[in-house]
Amino acid sequence: MKHLLGLQDLSAGEITGLLDAAEGFLGVGVDGVPKRDELKGKIVVNLFYEPSTRTRMSFGLAARRLGAETLDFSPSGSSTAKGESFIDTAKNIEAMGVNAMVVRHSSPGAPHLLTKYLKPHVRVINAGDGAHEHPTQGLLDILTIRRVKKTVAGLTVGLVGDIAHSRVARSNIHGLVKLGAKVIVCGPTTLVPQDVEQLGVEVAERFDDILPRCDVLNLLRVQFERQRSGLFPSIREYRLLFGMDGDRMARAKDGVLLLAPGPINRGVEISPDVADGPNSAILDQVNNGLAVRMAVLAALCK
Amino acid sequence: MKHLLGLQDLSAGEITGLLDAAEGFLGVGVDGVPKRDELKGKIVVNLFYEPSTRTRMSFGLAARRLGAETLDFSPSGSSTAKGESFIDTAKNIEAMGVNAMVVRHSSPGAPHLLTKYLKPHVRVINAGDGAHEHPTQGLLDILTIRRVKKTVAGLTVGLVGDIAHSRVARSNIHGLVKLGAKVIVCGPTTLVPQDVEQLGVEVAERFDDILPRCDVLNLLRVQFERQRSGLFPSIREYRLLFGMDGDRMARAKDGVLLLAPGPINRGVEISPDVADGPNSAILDQVNNGLAVRMAVLAALCK
Amino acid sequence: MKHLLGLQDLSAGEITGLLDAAEGFLGVGVDGVPKRDELKGKIVVNLFYEPSTRTRMSFGLAARRLGAETLDFSPSGSSTAKGESFIDTAKNIEAMGVNAMVVRHSSPGAPHLLTKYLKPHVRVINAGDGAHEHPTQGLLDILTIRRVKKTVAGLTVGLVGDIAHSRVARSNIHGLVKLGAKVIVCGPTTLVPQDVEQLGVEVAERFDDILPRCDVLNLLRVQFERQRSGLFPSIREYRLLFGMDGDRMARAKDGVLLLAPGPINRGVEISPDVADGPNSAILDQVNNGLAVRMAVLAALCK
Repeated sequence: MKHLLGLQDLSAGEITGLLDAAEGFLGVGVDGVPKRDELKGKIVVNLFYEPSTRTRMSFGLAARRLGAETLDFSPSGSSTAKGESFIDTAKNIEAMGVNAMVVRHSSPGAPHLLTKYLKPHVRVINAGDGAHEHPTQGLLDILTIRRVKKTVAGLTVGLVGDIAHSRVARSNIHGLVKLGAKVIVCGPTTLVPQDVEQLGVEVAERFDDILPRCDVLNLLRVQFERQRSGLFPSIREYRLLFGMDGDRMARAKDGVLLLAPGPINRGVEISPDVADGPNSAILDQVNNGLAVRMAVLAALCK
Repeated sequence: MKHLLGLQDLSAGEITGLLDAAEGFLGVGVDGVPKRDELKGKIVVNLFYEPSTRTRMSFGLAARRLGAETLDFSPSGSSTAKGESFIDTAKNIEAMGVNAMVVRHSSPGAPHLLTKYLKPHVRVINAGDGAHEHPTQGLLDILTIRRVKKTVAGLTVGLVGDIAHSRVARSNIHGLVKLGAKVIVCGPTTLVPQDVEQLGVEVAERFDDILPRCDVLNLLRVQFERQRSGLFPSIREYRLLFGMDGDRMARAKDGVLLLAPGPINRGVEISPDVADGPNSAILDQVNNGLAVRMAVLAALCK
Repeated sequence: MKHLLGLQDLSAGEITGLLDAAEGFLGVGVDGVPKRDELKGKIVVNLFYEPSTRTRMSFGLAARRLGAETLDFSPSGSSTAKGESFIDTAKNIEAMGVNAMVVRHSSPGAPHLLTKYLKPHVRVINAGDGAHEHPTQGLLDILTIRRVKKTVAGLTVGLVGDIAHSRVARSNIHGLVKLGAKVIVCGPTTLVPQDVEQLGVEVAERFDDILPRCDVLNLLRVQFERQRSGLFPSIREYRLLFGMDGDRMARAKDGVLLLAPGPINRGVEISPDVADGPNSAILDQVNNGLAVRMAVLAALCK
């Protein structure tokens, strides 16, 4: 592994290797547990062309907990405003002596493009490229599942919501299918890609139909701009058809595990009581995300 | 002490303890004086929902001079733009392994609310919540007074300007009254709360009346948006009635100490010659602020 | 040397001394080469009132590679929005215990003004003040020339483009002339100051006339807002008259060295093939810039 562009590119063994490594990084750098030095002397840059709280902070913390120095670049207030191209900006940052670039961009394939232009020793990690992939989110979702359910193979995982525009969905699908889970995608028909079955998943129209079958539900974030552009009729209808709430919890499988990539819209894709309830692993995902990012950085930059 | 939400909650002894501790932190980390390690391995987050230069930088420096790692979060360019709630954002940041949150928010009580939702071991420090309190500003003002005047009890301190909207005024009042100072508040009648005497202060309408009595004057910042909303007639009239200038200095008590929470409006609440003159401790306040924040962080996070 | 305000103020010996020191800092802190500790215990602040990617990051990295702590200040989201003056902001930051300020401001002379107000031990480095100077950019350009051409004296260097509004041009002129280079400035007549010959340079109207004479070409950035204000007729015409492309490369001197201060406009002042070609040292400039900034910081703050 030189770069992490997507889970589509990884084998089941490589994914499992990263998850195993992540387990070893859980808790490092917190509450007196000392930091590590796998990335001592290295520089990791966050190159984020889209807003982000948790992913940016998570990568920064993960890198520093491995001993790296981190730099944050965001286009606002920078030379992007002067018209510099994405590649030129990246090459300029690279020329300052950078070892890894964590890239978020609205264009699918932007991180892959970078790997063609940067020097061979620079590692690229995709932190979300358009609707394509968000591999560390996929890994942290799978790690959270594995830690609760002890295994991934054989589980039935429902991905609910806007599948079409979700890089989180795509990375989940690739990773979960490779590890032997059964994946069901479910959402408004306007928000489910027509050919998604080719990725090895089942498509369901009604959330209530799959509720009793799913061991895990990953409740994708409603992006309100999709509603404004007419892809679903109303927030209220979305909530009625696809929102996870106490009523649906009563009909879900015992011990169902709830994930959400966040930031969550309380009362839309998930009701507040369920988000804060015992089946929700939303905040564990944050903690697991740090460990996953440490594992990825350590694997690529060693 | 678990959190620092306001000086209203502290006893005189607790305030004096923090001031004494702050004296020991003066100059730490500057000009070759080594840093400390009270917060080694800890993470302190600045969670600022309002703009700030000095308070944010001061808390960041203070935390790092105690050996902590610091993170800066501001809502612009973050998931707040995606509609995440204040509490969800805070809980997500907490889940990354945070030990203390320094919070500034436009809503009075926001830091107090956080303490209800975060894990018990996470410390919350109020860095300004609406017009409620700004306790470290209160402490640094009092430390500055104590260092110049050697005592606080028995002093007469005038707070001049917009009392109603000032969290600085409120923290000063609580702290100074507890330590035995006489506090007089003075400002346009539209900007002095009707029931402020209940806090143990005297109210004066005319600045010139109290000038000869005050050992210390704290010249609150004019917030121009109050004038636009009709709460005082004009900047020129404000300056004539409440601005500190050379003419008023001649009528003030000998050795009067001038404070201003800043950023100051030169030529409005204070004239440039007075701001830069020998009675002004405006820049000492900055330096004392660092020591106060180190004392607070050390007391809470030990 | 106490401050670095412009290359106009330095002697040839001082410039050469900084360049020699910079050679010793090349590669420090990158790829396992350990950092240095010349600035251990010091605090360097980036005080940038104009947007910047590379200069801000470069100074920050340079300072940290010398062991300093760095702080970033930008006026957006800060007390500048509340009307605080430039000097008051700087003095407040200074009061936090700062050793050096790296200043970028749209007003020529802003860094010089700071030196009148800050304490004597605080060092000021000009990172670009209006159309006046950008001395570390001048130094890094000259270092790049010296490393490729082995000498500066006797070389003919063309500065091409908007001379009038370019602080990069002005710092290049001062530095290059002092070191014995022949400098030719060339650009649209509206963008060449009338009295520029007084700085010891030759003025050429047509780029094609000077092409065969120049050992080095520094292709200044086209600032599109100048075109909107009528100072040159069109981007297309600019490119035809002053753009460096393959056709002009064929008519340029053998081994001509191409510099560009960046961020570059591909296809305007330089064509993509030439920007990425063997004569271009654009990315070397970035790397050399780090070394130059380390040399300047070390010289001033020792």
